[in-house]
Amino acid sequence: MKTTVTAEALAFFESVMPGRLFSGNAILADYDHDEMTEYGHFMPEAVLQAENADEISKVLAYCNTHRIAVTPRGAGTGLCGGCVAIHGGIVLSTERMKRVLEVDTENMTATVEPGVLLMEFPNSLEGTGLFYPPDPGEKTATMGGNAMTNAGGMRAVRYGVTRDYILGMQVVLADGSILEIGGKNVKTSSGYSLLQLMIGSEGTLGICTRLTVKLVPAPAVTCSLLIPFPDLDSCIGAVPHVLRLGVNPTAVEFMEREVIGCAETYLGKAFPDTASDAYLLIRLDRTRADELTPAIDALTDLLLSLGAKDVLMADTEERLSSLWDARGAFLEAIKGSTSTMDECDVVVPRKLIPLFVRKMREIGERECIRIRVFGHAGDGNLHIYVCRDDLPEDEWKAKIARVMDTLYQEAKELGGNVSGEHGIGHAKRPYLLNSVGDRQMDLMRGIKAAFDPNGILNPGKVIS
Amino acid sequence: MKTTVTAEALAFFESVMPGRLFSGNAILADYDHDEMTEYGHFMPEAVLQAENADEISKVLAYCNTHRIAVTPRGAGTGLCGGCVAIHGGIVLSTERMKRVLEVDTENMTATVEPGVLLMEFPNSLEGTGLFYPPDPGEKTATMGGNAMTNAGGMRAVRYGVTRDYILGMQVVLADGSILEIGGKNVKTSSGYSLLQLMIGSEGTLGICTRLTVKLVPAPAVTCSLLIPFPDLDSCIGAVPHVLRLGVNPTAVEFMEREVIGCAETYLGKAFPDTASDAYLLIRLDRTRADELTPAIDALTDLLLSLGAKDVLMADTEERLSSLWDARGAFLEAIKGSTSTMDECDVVVPRKLIPLFVRKMREIGERECIRIRVFGHAGDGNLHIYVCRDDLPEDEWKAKIARVMDTLYQEAKELGGNVSGEHGIGHAKRPYLLNSVGDRQMDLMRGIKAAFDPNGILNPGKVIS
Repeated sequence: MKTTVTAEALAFFESVMPGRLFSGNAILADYDHDEMTEYGHFMPEAVLQAENADEISKVLAYCNTHRIAVTPRGAGTGLCGGCVAIHGGIVLSTERMKRVLEVDTENMTATVEPGVLLMEFPNSLEGTGLFYPPDPGEKTATMGGNAMTNAGGMRAVRYGVTRDYILGMQVVLADGSILEIGGKNVKTSSGYSLLQLMIGSEGTLGICTRLTVKLVPAPAVTCSLLIPFPDLDSCIGAVPHVLRLGVNPTAVEFMEREVIGCAETYLGKAFPDTASDAYLLIRLDRTRADELTPAIDALTDLLLSLGAKDVLMADTEERLSSLWDARGAFLEAIKGSTSTMDECDVVVPRKLIPLFVRKMREIGERECIRIRVFGHAGDGNLHIYVCRDDLPEDEWKAKIARVMDTLYQEAKELGGNVSGEHGIGHAKRPYLLNSVGDRQMDLMRGIKAAFDPNGILNPGKVIS
Repeated sequence: MKTTVTAEALAFFESVMPGRLFSGNAILADYDHDEMTEYGHFMPEAVLQAENADEISKVLAYCNTHRIAVTPRGAGTGLCGGCVAIHGGIVLSTERMKRVLEVDTENMTATVEPGVLLMEFPNSLEGTGLFYPPDPGEKTATMGGNAMTNAGGMRAVRYGVTRDYILGMQVVLADGSILEIGGKNVKTSSGYSLLQLMIGSEGTLGICTRLTVKLVPAPAVTCSLLIPFPDLDSCIGAVPHVLRLGVNPTAVEFMEREVIGCAETYLGKAFPDTASDAYLLIRLDRTRADELTPAIDALTDLLLSLGAKDVLMADTEERLSSLWDARGAFLEAIKGSTSTMDECDVVVPRKLIPLFVRKMREIGERECIRIRVFGHAGDGNLHIYVCRDDLPEDEWKAKIARVMDTLYQEAKELGGNVSGEHGIGHAKRPYLLNSVGDRQMDLMRGIKAAFDPNGILNPGKVIS
């Protein structure tokens, strides 16, 4: 790859962000990958740690003129290489932009810089009675990264995904223009929704420098139910009934014995029940304690009538954490159980999860490869991990390519999409193209060209 | 305006849609306007009543080649001239495409043709226990029209707007391509959201020929509260407290004595209370009857502590209809109270409604013109009607231009948007441009060019 970041460019960047420019050996190894090292290591020519939109504007205007690739990056917790500089140039990090600028309790909004971590944000809401519902598993992710990948998370069944909570954004375009899109208004029908387009665009259309998010009243009481089933079919088969019951569950997750076993080993902590093949984990939140019991009763009756072996309730901190810590550790636990792995997070219409898992199992058996799955039963989003274990390199490469192709093809045939919440990055581009087809990809290319005619923003991502 | 629809074109259209092509005197006068005749009458050269996507594909491909303007139209109930052929060419009506193709109770989705009327759709859901929350005031609107303007409605406080319920769409592009975007999946992060971009694009990017919408469990019990306040400030001032209480109201509307008076006259029916200047109308829905009382109690305590004069409950069909029939009649009632009128539906951050209404009153007094307002207090969306009454034509023209300019300018200064739910059409274009500025309009133009390079789709709408 040819060098594009000249000495002159470095001098310019240093003048804009003094002391926050890193190049050559000064760049930490972390910046050459995200959470999926399987997709390769790519060292940028320079890393810039921005502190505000004006700095980003100046740098982008320069890069646009000099055709330098700019890869925006938050906390680097992605799973498809979206924040990795695969075409060189600079990594523009927003990790230092982590101020919560305003919590507006009357309009029920908060305005934050993009680098605020998901795990830190709740501190700013303490005492307001409000909360921010999006709850992706990776709590060290940034809110900006969440917005730009439209991250989902555990609470999406009740509350929706990140897209549903972004009201406004400040973005810097490739030419350095600083735009305010949306605002504090909770509804709008005022021209094409540039906001909705920017959400989930993975930094290929603009760099997010400020976010205004919607807050909602925090629930006062919570309870989780762990429901063992004899098999995955009856487990997932219960989900449409649960959703139609009207108890408005916050989360409906499914998990299988093997994955729970990985988490027990990883955490060194026993799960409350491991006697069954498949489990649903349902979370209920309510404003008032007396609203919880009728919902639990209705759910319990329903679940037992649908073949559940039991309904185990967790309403203490300790019991809740034994369940959700395990759920939260699945990704790392599976990662820790194998040499390396590849993942996919396809989404299919909810009722087709068992069919998809059956097809996934057949693929695993046919290819003699270990595949683990868990995920969001309430919204059809599976997290599938294909484990290399002790396969030799060449065999793994050949197998994983076939396995992934087949998984995505099956998802497509069931009316599914490539990614429910992780995004496309560079790793999933061929699958996106295959899924949406040439005409839709043409439209995406046209949109990209309207926002970033020189193609400097996160090149090699999303668009094929 | 020069004629673009030649005899050859008419012959081609007739071959595609035999018996469903209307030209010259055969075109009904209805097709030359929407609900706002104030914005002019524009007779198209031909009207085509399509029955399926293939027909639309053939007609668009022809029009694209021959540069014939195509104005898509549903029920023609819009309020900003969006479905009116201001540049001649053809009106392509989807009014005959009104089949409900599928109700999928397991995935909780329905798939419909765009011409299904909002008032007809609930019939298809009878007995399923499911419902479709978007509830714009105009029940004779089509679901396709609702999607393409991102219509809002009364239930948006709890359930969100039309955008939040569209999972998938079949659209025909200007070149005749038929695309399937989205599907039955309830979450996705798979490239730029063409679906979100299409929603609210008012037929300028493509013609919607099929919709897949999300359904939710229908509430079993409902109750509405009418709350009189001494003045609008205390009335709207209570809204943030109501929203933070966590009782999850379905609707929070505000209304004033004068507007209620118009509705009483129009309906020939008394409103339950007219002794106060300002009212909140709050609707609560619950799955279980025993969940209603605690919520009503909590709300009543809160409202009385905030200066409400009373809390009047409506839980019978008769009482509910006396409230909501009046609310539903406001637009027609104000229309009926004056010779002609102009309207705007700006949205501002919720807590700024009283400030905005104060500014609106000042404008009305300064200009000596009658302005009526009501709207969605729960989401900051006002419906403002400026009445001509007995003003002579030239005075009205001059005044209404000044009044509208000032209203939109005030909304902009408060961080508001041009339209909360009615859209832009042709009538609101200058205000959209002024609101978003040149750079955002450039991006919209770029998007338009990517979808419709020849500019045949609904020309003269949205984009300046």
